[in-house]
Amino acid sequence: MEFQTPKGTRDFLPDEMAKRRAVFDACRAVFEKYGFGEVDTPAFESLELLTAKGSLGDEAVKDIYRFEDKSQRKLGLRYDLTVPMVRLFLSQKFPRPVKWYSIGKVWRYEDIAKGRWREFSQCDVEIIGSPLPEADVEVLAVAIECLLALGLKDIEVRINSRKIMDAMAEKLGITRREEVFRALDKLDKRGEREVKKELLAFCSSEQADKVLAFIKSPSKQEELERIIALLPGEYRKYVRPDLSIARGLDYYTGFVFETFVKGFENLGSVVSGGRYDRLIEKYGGEPVPATGFGLGSDRLAEIVNISGVRNPSVFIANVDAPAKARELCYALRALNVAAETDVMGRSISKQFDYAGRKGVSYVVVIGEKEVKSGKAMLRDMATGKEKPVALDARAIAASLRER
Amino acid sequence: MEFQTPKGTRDFLPDEMAKRRAVFDACRAVFEKYGFGEVDTPAFESLELLTAKGSLGDEAVKDIYRFEDKSQRKLGLRYDLTVPMVRLFLSQKFPRPVKWYSIGKVWRYEDIAKGRWREFSQCDVEIIGSPLPEADVEVLAVAIECLLALGLKDIEVRINSRKIMDAMAEKLGITRREEVFRALDKLDKRGEREVKKELLAFCSSEQADKVLAFIKSPSKQEELERIIALLPGEYRKYVRPDLSIARGLDYYTGFVFETFVKGFENLGSVVSGGRYDRLIEKYGGEPVPATGFGLGSDRLAEIVNISGVRNPSVFIANVDAPAKARELCYALRALNVAAETDVMGRSISKQFDYAGRKGVSYVVVIGEKEVKSGKAMLRDMATGKEKPVALDARAIAASLRER
Repeated sequence: MEFQTPKGTRDFLPDEMAKRRAVFDACRAVFEKYGFGEVDTPAFESLELLTAKGSLGDEAVKDIYRFEDKSQRKLGLRYDLTVPMVRLFLSQKFPRPVKWYSIGKVWRYEDIAKGRWREFSQCDVEIIGSPLPEADVEVLAVAIECLLALGLKDIEVRINSRKIMDAMAEKLGITRREEVFRALDKLDKRGEREVKKELLAFCSSEQADKVLAFIKSPSKQEELERIIALLPGEYRKYVRPDLSIARGLDYYTGFVFETFVKGFENLGSVVSGGRYDRLIEKYGGEPVPATGFGLGSDRLAEIVNISGVRNPSVFIANVDAPAKARELCYALRALNVAAETDVMGRSISKQFDYAGRKGVSYVVVIGEKEVKSGKAMLRDMATGKEKPVALDARAIAASLRER
Repeated sequence: MEFQTPKGTRDFLPDEMAKRRAVFDACRAVFEKYGFGEVDTPAFESLELLTAKGSLGDEAVKDIYRFEDKSQRKLGLRYDLTVPMVRLFLSQKFPRPVKWYSIGKVWRYEDIAKGRWREFSQCDVEIIGSPLPEADVEVLAVAIECLLALGLKDIEVRINSRKIMDAMAEKLGITRREEVFRALDKLDKRGEREVKKELLAFCSSEQADKVLAFIKSPSKQEELERIIALLPGEYRKYVRPDLSIARGLDYYTGFVFETFVKGFENLGSVVSGGRYDRLIEKYGGEPVPATGFGLGSDRLAEIVNISGVRNPSVFIANVDAPAKARELCYALRALNVAAETDVMGRSISKQFDYAGRKGVSYVVVIGEKEVKSGKAMLRDMATGKEKPVALDARAIAASLRER
């Protein structure tokens, strides 16, 4: 039998998990501070919902993991967190604007050769009910603050608007808009020459030149300037208009943005989102404006420099004194100190070996002498230094704090 | 289109989610204190792994959500967190004992008429590699401490051992052990008379009487007494031997336990687990002893009395002063205060309405007068009382803390 994860998925061990947890926690703190409430939806939804016309594009729909339950209900693993949140929004009446966030996994049958995973986590934020740029700005500010909270200061948020692009296409008489926008989206990676070649499949050479000239002059775009002006002053420096940003998802209707970390541009956009005013009505209801983003927490966990704050931990090793070691271990835990002791009946050298591999901060060894004298040595595993300490949970806990 | 969740699954709104989050966080803190490290595995595994002989029982295997990916790989949503952690353990070499925990969802096509959900969360703890009762005790102590940390003091942990039961069956010449143990497991719910009737299908009347007499005398069981003796003194009072506990999962081989909260016995066991020394070798490796538990965090979230510590929040309402309101709102957030302002362009009464429904703790109203005077009223939404405050983020933040 194979003990690897299914293709395109992976396990996270404690060190990696601590980093992911730190990203989740940092984002959650920012989301809550901005007045967003956490919601959670099932891992799977009805296939009808996931594949509804106008939500995901045709390519995306193909990548949904689909199955039937025992009663032949057609289901699919969620592809993103936005569609489930929209479904939740439609399931009952909520005071508007709804400000929700959700942290969880999504599944896409991606091409793993492109370095993509088929299961990954997202931290998602949505404001449903407001048509105003104030809501877009709120979403943008949350995205920026999350990255700053993760210690990423060298970031660039590129903003655009589908409305600007549509107006340009209209003016230039371009009919195959989606294809043109997608070609433009590659400008950063492939350069102007390559993109122009691609554009010629969808418009005339003259149109292509005008399009390329247009997107080089983003500064004149009032809508984008207005969004930047509404941002708190200290966040403006991170944001710049970029008319080549198109975003893959078909449901965006206005403001869109992507976010890049300097030095890690190869990761692609780490936070992306925008306004999707037409999505909700496609499920058969009234039109409801909405805006939000998804943050790629797994990717960010790989580049942020936070190790997940771990408190110092102690291993109580023993030579023929397991009861005393256990007693001390539980007494330390009662004082909120992370403590372990041997549960294998091992020799002292093997106990040290385990403590070393596990990466505990301190080891205390207890034998007959220590039990008699009430004193032991506290070994700092990072430096190898030892200092005497009373064989008492309070005394040991105090020594850790002195560190 | 239907906007309900797929049958047997559900959404969690912010208030419910805050309680679940509080349960996850409380358990995580205890797990870390005991030296367990968090791991995360994919939502789906190969169907071969999930249905391997001797892991889940035949009934359980039928309840797995199964599907194929686009390359016809046979997959299934994980049924529990133990099997994926065992698979992770087998995927590479780890220093033993492995002490892992995992928090996540599992999926079972359950009979929802019995009040069960088809998607639910578990907090799982496993010690892999130790054959000693010291490891069982560690697991038991973690379970008890989690419940105490959740404020549940009136709990009863019932412990048993498959070994004791097997020895009894051997001695009494009972051959249909599984059926007999399952009948005994219902003693609490159905009473002795009903259970005896059921037993007669699997053994003689004399055997049934002896079995029932045997399980009424759990105090003589040395193995269980030893486990209780190894527990820290203050935890012993929560634990009692109960030879009727069988546990549904087929893979238990020794110590097993279930945990009930007084007054909520109808929920069934909220934390259950035990020793499964034969599971790992069934995947084709060497025998590796292991012990652990699963905690039903969704059920516990429904009964614990913690609301998820939320810091006070402020809504900055405005009359024709949106820029000032936004500025103040961002300044409060910079001071780590949860703050919101209108993003709908609404009238003051509608802004109040939103703040009230949302349950924010305080509202500050800003209009022309307040902007001019630099003073405003801070309204405590719980009491309706107002007090004057300077129109300054630091002053407002300080007033909240005085509360």
